[in-house]
Amino acid sequence: MEKNKKISTESYKGTRDFYPEDLAVQNFIFDRARQISENFGYEEYNTSVLEPTELYKAKSGDEIVNEQTYSFIDKGDRDVTLRPEMTPSIARMVAKKRRELTYPLRWFSIQNFFRYERPQKGRLREFWQLNADIFGVEGIEAEVEIISLGYEIMKALGAQDEDFVIKINYAGILKETYQTELNLDESEVKKALRIIDSKNKVSEEEYRQKYINDFGEDKGKQLFEIEQKITEKTKQNEKFQKCVELGKKLENKGIKTELDPLLTRGFDYYTGIVFEFFDTNPENKRALFGGGRYDDLLDLFDSEKIPAVGFGMGDVTIKDFLEVRSLLPKYQSKTELYLCTLSQKYSDNADQLATSLRKQNINVTVNYSDKKIGDQISVADKKKIPYVICIGGDEVQNKQYKLKNLKTGEEQEVTEESIADAIKQITE
Amino acid sequence: MEKNKKISTESYKGTRDFYPEDLAVQNFIFDRARQISENFGYEEYNTSVLEPTELYKAKSGDEIVNEQTYSFIDKGDRDVTLRPEMTPSIARMVAKKRRELTYPLRWFSIQNFFRYERPQKGRLREFWQLNADIFGVEGIEAEVEIISLGYEIMKALGAQDEDFVIKINYAGILKETYQTELNLDESEVKKALRIIDSKNKVSEEEYRQKYINDFGEDKGKQLFEIEQKITEKTKQNEKFQKCVELGKKLENKGIKTELDPLLTRGFDYYTGIVFEFFDTNPENKRALFGGGRYDDLLDLFDSEKIPAVGFGMGDVTIKDFLEVRSLLPKYQSKTELYLCTLSQKYSDNADQLATSLRKQNINVTVNYSDKKIGDQISVADKKKIPYVICIGGDEVQNKQYKLKNLKTGEEQEVTEESIADAIKQITE
Repeated sequence: MEKNKKISTESYKGTRDFYPEDLAVQNFIFDRARQISENFGYEEYNTSVLEPTELYKAKSGDEIVNEQTYSFIDKGDRDVTLRPEMTPSIARMVAKKRRELTYPLRWFSIQNFFRYERPQKGRLREFWQLNADIFGVEGIEAEVEIISLGYEIMKALGAQDEDFVIKINYAGILKETYQTELNLDESEVKKALRIIDSKNKVSEEEYRQKYINDFGEDKGKQLFEIEQKITEKTKQNEKFQKCVELGKKLENKGIKTELDPLLTRGFDYYTGIVFEFFDTNPENKRALFGGGRYDDLLDLFDSEKIPAVGFGMGDVTIKDFLEVRSLLPKYQSKTELYLCTLSQKYSDNADQLATSLRKQNINVTVNYSDKKIGDQISVADKKKIPYVICIGGDEVQNKQYKLKNLKTGEEQEVTEESIADAIKQITE
Repeated sequence: MEKNKKISTESYKGTRDFYPEDLAVQNFIFDRARQISENFGYEEYNTSVLEPTELYKAKSGDEIVNEQTYSFIDKGDRDVTLRPEMTPSIARMVAKKRRELTYPLRWFSIQNFFRYERPQKGRLREFWQLNADIFGVEGIEAEVEIISLGYEIMKALGAQDEDFVIKINYAGILKETYQTELNLDESEVKKALRIIDSKNKVSEEEYRQKYINDFGEDKGKQLFEIEQKITEKTKQNEKFQKCVELGKKLENKGIKTELDPLLTRGFDYYTGIVFEFFDTNPENKRALFGGGRYDDLLDLFDSEKIPAVGFGMGDVTIKDFLEVRSLLPKYQSKTELYLCTLSQKYSDNADQLATSLRKQNINVTVNYSDKKIGDQISVADKKKIPYVICIGGDEVQNKQYKLKNLKTGEEQEVTEESIADAIKQITE
């Protein structure tokens, strides 16, 4: 490249730079998610963001594999993909050690994913997701537990019951009804399901127009008008009674759900109950996250099937959800103490004090600049560090310090031995 | 793809599946690294693993960019790369907000990187790395702090002073000496430096042979024999006195270093002191991690320069280092309690108890299977969960439980209210 051509400072389109204040938000969300997952006995796992492409060809949705993946050929001629979702990877990992593992497995991970999409509100090309899955439980207890886990995470993030609704359906029966009642073929059913998926995002007239655009005037209108009837038919399907049972069990635990025969999910591998946590804010009617049962996915590998239920909760939608409800915490630095120096000749003294305080588990940082003391304090304040101590000749000689609280302006006399206790007492 | 062709369960070549026991090791390493970094007042940041390729073309080492990157063209015709290292990304982030940020910046991240290499001991195609950097300090205090941080992380991981040596050099003066003393041109210097980089990994005879292979019989021998003289010349270089000063300052803090005029680093952007933490085990003489000063890197962007010092510590080498010294902790589940059920009809009771205990911050999981009680206990034991409670008719009626410690076999009578305290007391 030319010597003088300057490089852009922008991150790659649809990805984000997490400056410390941004990452603090991200960590707030996923620290809570991790804590609740461990609280439910889930164990953390991980694998590479780069996977063989064949992993996605068989079971993910068509749109996701063909149009939305980041796939390329490596220098050794292998077809590889930046994972668009976690489920195929966890299924691969379970299949690989299926005989050594002790069931039920309760696993979670917090990792990044890539989809080639037009970046828009709630959608980016790279996003982070909590994935939680339970393997080896055939009974409905698995769905009860997984949905309870999602619910408790929402509560731990500060959400109220009325902020979201949990919708439940059974994968495949809507398709079945369309096929038997209306004789739609496979591709027509797909088109209809995609339209239904947009139902909550558009006005009724736009929604009706979508049917007409995709199916023509007559058939489109017919499909739009028959939707209510289809819904009723679906509810009568025997499989749908599983949803009714699940709803009751969750209600006994104080978790309300809504049975929704029109609920669809973007992946093709679900074999039973599917669910979605949905934002109730009328201005943000959208799915927050969801999941379901996928008992057949291990069949992809040379492995017997293992029943599985799981969900993926993405950071982008959750952050929006928390932001509009003012549920995100105010940023505060994890650094507790900033040591200012009256002149650079006290840098070594400050450094010695810092070393001693660090051993007492105080997070402390030292000024090395020749800035004026007021400017140093202002650096600490800008960085949201709550305490400062200024070090000069007196302090070095007497080993007596003034601990200043930048929020209240209060000062407290401390010795090297009492600093740690003073800080811990106030922050507790 | 064909319906019946089975997919491999292997992860992509050179990447790893982290099962919970593997991730526990990884988390042990990086949790300590994170704790010490925060202890030094460093703040966590992150950015995408996918970056515009131009970011690496200007300043990373030739070999790394041309042969070792995962670069490809996205569907929108952008040339993108899976980051092989963090420094260009952090420089980009700092340049982007250079006017809003408050210096000095002390930042760290724990993220993954990709290099297309032949996987071998200590080297994989995907690895994870702690990166810690300080921006805005011109003085040697920055090097003192960054090396102290690396040192304290090693100690926090359980390493002894004699397990590793910290080597220090000044970037570029070896090259300068070669050019002025021996009239080597740019590409010859590069070849010589690459040979020197292998010095500790091969026998003396193999090392001599490398010179001969690359420079021919006469010149190769001459270069091999003159190395000692070059080393002395390098030590006399004025810049090298900075290394002497740094060594003294670190020694005052109880951190021993070794001045090594032959130390080279794989990246081209270093402008001052460079350092490497080196394993002293005679069977594993290799660099554990390293870094240095790179004051000019922001010049890549349309930005004034900001002085910077940093290092990157990878998981693969550190894990090997800890493993051979038996410093890795034994795996224990974060789940504290497994609730067994004498029959499936008590599942709901067990689930109620679990919900109550979770609210008291006990990590608890429930049996939903119809396995015999002995088999349930054996599941808990295999999963390294330390406590079990079995729930049957008596327990449901009397609300009295037996808390069993699977390690000692001891049993303790508890009530719903005393379980949490009993577990917390024993584990503390």
